[in-house]
Amino acid sequence: MKASALGPMESLSMTDRVENILREYLMDNGFKPGDSLPNETEIAQKLNVSRNVVREALSRLRMLGLIESRTRRGMIMAQPDLFAGIEKVMSPSILSHDNQKDLFELRLILEMGIAEFLFARKTDKDLAELEAIVNKQKGLKSLSREDEIEFHGKLYEMTGNDTFRRFQTLLFPVFDHVFKEYLDKGVHMDLPNPVSHADLFEVLKNGTAGQFRNAMYVHLTPYFTTTLKNGGLSPS
Amino acid sequence: MKASALGPMESLSMTDRVENILREYLMDNGFKPGDSLPNETEIAQKLNVSRNVVREALSRLRMLGLIESRTRRGMIMAQPDLFAGIEKVMSPSILSHDNQKDLFELRLILEMGIAEFLFARKTDKDLAELEAIVNKQKGLKSLSREDEIEFHGKLYEMTGNDTFRRFQTLLFPVFDHVFKEYLDKGVHMDLPNPVSHADLFEVLKNGTAGQFRNAMYVHLTPYFTTTLKNGGLSPS
Repeated sequence: MKASALGPMESLSMTDRVENILREYLMDNGFKPGDSLPNETEIAQKLNVSRNVVREALSRLRMLGLIESRTRRGMIMAQPDLFAGIEKVMSPSILSHDNQKDLFELRLILEMGIAEFLFARKTDKDLAELEAIVNKQKGLKSLSREDEIEFHGKLYEMTGNDTFRRFQTLLFPVFDHVFKEYLDKGVHMDLPNPVSHADLFEVLKNGTAGQFRNAMYVHLTPYFTTTLKNGGLSPS
Repeated sequence: MKASALGPMESLSMTDRVENILREYLMDNGFKPGDSLPNETEIAQKLNVSRNVVREALSRLRMLGLIESRTRRGMIMAQPDLFAGIEKVMSPSILSHDNQKDLFELRLILEMGIAEFLFARKTDKDLAELEAIVNKQKGLKSLSREDEIEFHGKLYEMTGNDTFRRFQTLLFPVFDHVFKEYLDKGVHMDLPNPVSHADLFEVLKNGTAGQFRNAMYVHLTPYFTTTLKNGGLSPS
């Protein structure tokens, strides 16, 4: 706290503080996955806090995937799952409206940004699998949520970036929810989509990254028009 | 567990299970920020588990920002911070190498995806602020990390998407770390950058979303070439 700017002190609980201290300790001392940690009693003694507080703080680190308990080995450092925390709160029922709107937009940003990765990494096997999905959908009058997820999910997989794929998948429920809200407000999608999944597939197979992005923009137009005030913007 | 496919049972601890039960309870019953929660003792009795386990599980939810303790009001539902969990593990020293590589790429994907949002939402005030940053940097022989963050950070802010801005900011340390690794392997940046921050500003002011993205691609070429095997890919 700076003396020159009086403001409310941070309202950290003892558990918050011990959690922060432990995370800093692990990082500053270069703990690697598999390394053994001091036990609960030792930590409580060194920090001069109750074992209950230490247990709570360790439980939080366990939830984040930073540490694990192993039979006969005690606690060890683990490899954290990047999305362990975020996936526990990624639900339309608890996120703020602003968060939901932002995440809806984030998915659009991501879809527009992947073209270079798709073209650099596409394989014949990938394209054959994507073509199978497209062919299966050709006869359908309209696409279900599952059809959309199957096609776009395959694209995410083709980026070769597993973190991206998981993040996009996490966004699906929120995306659905916000879009339904727009629909309820009278926004409607003009069907059929001028750029279908089959069209996107053709461009991905035979076109360029720039052409693919233009096609993706048109494909996503209903979403862009509901999001951006002057939604008729073209990417080129 | 399906009888037809014997596999290891999920190794959830009692705390993991209580945490899951409580999160589902809060969501299924439509708890909104500010709503009061049952207290620790009540929860322990209903679930027939020890108070220690309940306390640990609640502490995890508190860390995620799902609940808060208020003097005289007990526990209430809160508005979770989307990134509370992720920012605690977003450190080059503990993330797996694959995660880091993925996040490095994710930043490139995001930079390529924001053009439509920038053009839809840019204001004269934003442009004036960005121009001031650019002018400040014009005299410099080379740009520091802080200069890069100032310019790109302003772009993120101009998307009007606070979640995006925070996520990109979270990625900075990992991005730096991975790029330094590439540099150590002999990858080098050809300076001066053929598309400078000043050039990007000009396109953002007077050009189109498509032109901006092409310029951004060239600006990011050193990163793309280190990332994509056939890095010379052009977006158009």
